[in-house]
Amino acid sequence: MSYKVITEDKLTSARLGELSTPHGVVRTPAFMPVATKGTVKTVSVDELKELGTEAIIANALHLHIRPGENVIAELGGLHKFMLWDRVIFTDSGGFQMIRKNFNIKRSEEGLMFRDFFNGSKRTFTPEMCMDIQKALGSDVAMLLDDCPVHDSTPKKLRESTEQTVRWAKRGLEHGRALGIPNLFAIVQGGVDSELRRWCTDRLEEFDPDGYGIGGLSIGESKADMNQVLKESVDYLPKHKVRYLMGVGSVAEMLEAISLGVDVFDSAFPTQCARHGTIFTCAGRYNLRGTRDERDARPLDEGCTCPTCKHYTRAYINHLLREKEMLGMRLASLHNLHFLLNLVEESKKAIAAGAFAEFKAELLNAMVKKTT
Amino acid sequence: MSYKVITEDKLTSARLGELSTPHGVVRTPAFMPVATKGTVKTVSVDELKELGTEAIIANALHLHIRPGENVIAELGGLHKFMLWDRVIFTDSGGFQMIRKNFNIKRSEEGLMFRDFFNGSKRTFTPEMCMDIQKALGSDVAMLLDDCPVHDSTPKKLRESTEQTVRWAKRGLEHGRALGIPNLFAIVQGGVDSELRRWCTDRLEEFDPDGYGIGGLSIGESKADMNQVLKESVDYLPKHKVRYLMGVGSVAEMLEAISLGVDVFDSAFPTQCARHGTIFTCAGRYNLRGTRDERDARPLDEGCTCPTCKHYTRAYINHLLREKEMLGMRLASLHNLHFLLNLVEESKKAIAAGAFAEFKAELLNAMVKKTT
Repeated sequence: MSYKVITEDKLTSARLGELSTPHGVVRTPAFMPVATKGTVKTVSVDELKELGTEAIIANALHLHIRPGENVIAELGGLHKFMLWDRVIFTDSGGFQMIRKNFNIKRSEEGLMFRDFFNGSKRTFTPEMCMDIQKALGSDVAMLLDDCPVHDSTPKKLRESTEQTVRWAKRGLEHGRALGIPNLFAIVQGGVDSELRRWCTDRLEEFDPDGYGIGGLSIGESKADMNQVLKESVDYLPKHKVRYLMGVGSVAEMLEAISLGVDVFDSAFPTQCARHGTIFTCAGRYNLRGTRDERDARPLDEGCTCPTCKHYTRAYINHLLREKEMLGMRLASLHNLHFLLNLVEESKKAIAAGAFAEFKAELLNAMVKKTT
Repeated sequence: MSYKVITEDKLTSARLGELSTPHGVVRTPAFMPVATKGTVKTVSVDELKELGTEAIIANALHLHIRPGENVIAELGGLHKFMLWDRVIFTDSGGFQMIRKNFNIKRSEEGLMFRDFFNGSKRTFTPEMCMDIQKALGSDVAMLLDDCPVHDSTPKKLRESTEQTVRWAKRGLEHGRALGIPNLFAIVQGGVDSELRRWCTDRLEEFDPDGYGIGGLSIGESKADMNQVLKESVDYLPKHKVRYLMGVGSVAEMLEAISLGVDVFDSAFPTQCARHGTIFTCAGRYNLRGTRDERDARPLDEGCTCPTCKHYTRAYINHLLREKEMLGMRLASLHNLHFLLNLVEESKKAIAAGAFAEFKAELLNAMVKKTT
């Protein structure tokens, strides 16, 4: 078993765990910075290590298109290519189905789309998806899923979910044969609890190493998301790791941890940073403007990140206004630190059996200060 | 005297020197990375230090417009603002006259232009130029000059040069009163040797701490530039530091050092880097393409920069194709290292009295490998 639960919280379903991989252990709850194309935007691997990052997630489909998994394999795999010697998750590319610029069609065989660089037709099957992640040298590979848009018709939603299950079976068999260390299946089903339960039951029959919870935080209401997330996690087997895909806002992460989610990833903190939106314990604020021009404080008072230790809000504000990349980088380092620190503090709270209190205090502080 | 010559080369006019400032000594020949708006594009101050950078150059006019020198002064000056505790040169903004986007007009009083952010009328006098550089806390301030375009009429060229002299007098008097540690006058005169000699003689009467050689490498022919540069340097007093402004190509720098130039600055290496043009001993090459897709070598074999120590050409090529900022940063670090290393090696060659040989060998290697 690659995953084990270490401690459970007293009042909530939060838990401490360890996911073992060929490139080390990920202590959960964990947050993964997103390195879609083999780099976390604006940040170096040394900086990621300095922040205490244990795992990152890259994207199989993107890297398949450019530079191609064969190129990366020839150069020694993704770890060596990007100089990251810690854990690499790779996402399948199924999520890219709901992004219009990919213009993806689906058949039983797999995904079909046009290469947006050279216009050629591309097919992307569940088996290929495994071949690619094997070639990349992924520590944790995601099985190809069929991610429906949040407002799909019930018929479409059921089709997508059934497709996800059939692809998971094919992918898992192929991935096991290739010897990929960890294979995670992705639960779909939109906001239909019964469909999610059905999907989870089917996937469980294949015995994957962990579960991705997909198709959430893609446009549905907050109430729907919380309800479905709770049910989704409850259906999942306790002894397997649970990864809520694409969620990186503080309130959502805290809620998910309390429900028993172990792993998160999101491009949100770095996206925000590049546009001057700064994460703090008092909520997010936007930096670009004359208001912060003379502000000698760090981005977030009391923060221990490399940016806040040295730089002023005024300077970073100036850099962002001038579109200087150093500004985007300093803000990205801060936002990543903020979420990595959030999961560290969560671990401490769970170890102390006091996650409910920790969560309430944090949310309370955010509400108070932003109103 | 803030500058002293330490050693002179045997066969050429190259020399080793030391320029003393409140933030340390700059050993010459020196190359300064350009931090126009208070940051060397894509690179952090820690990285600049790791490269051995002793001085950088910022721009008074740019920082005057945004965020304003008062903002920076309030925050403790430019050193503190950008966290650079070594030497800062500041350029005056006179050079910006030949850049069309500034749309600058000239009067006896100074420069007049419209603020390109809010459209307001701005005046920029030689005295203001000193006030700004004082507020920034510059170690070496440049006097405001009137930089003519390279194809000015003889009449216009003479007018600009006379204007430069009158402004230098006003600026120097004001700068001395303000107690700015080092004030450099800028020699103009286009490619007219007699005019340059006249300008130098006039400026020498004011006894500035050093001389900028301006208005070169702005579109004139290479032969013209070399000829005028040689004459320009010959006219200058030997015991004062000579700074050739805006020159950062290897051949030009080597030629200038052999003529007795001490200081260089250029945005060229970082501009090139962001577009994938890599400096090497064998000349420059462009990285973006499929040719380098599988190339496991560093950017420049044998290079000891932080980029070449770790990263492959294939990875940086991938990052640049994907417009990832990390690629621009890794390439910038390499190109800056290349020029900083060039002046380090030049110093050694001068100390050994063998600069002519060093220069010939380097140029020969570049010609050989690029043909």
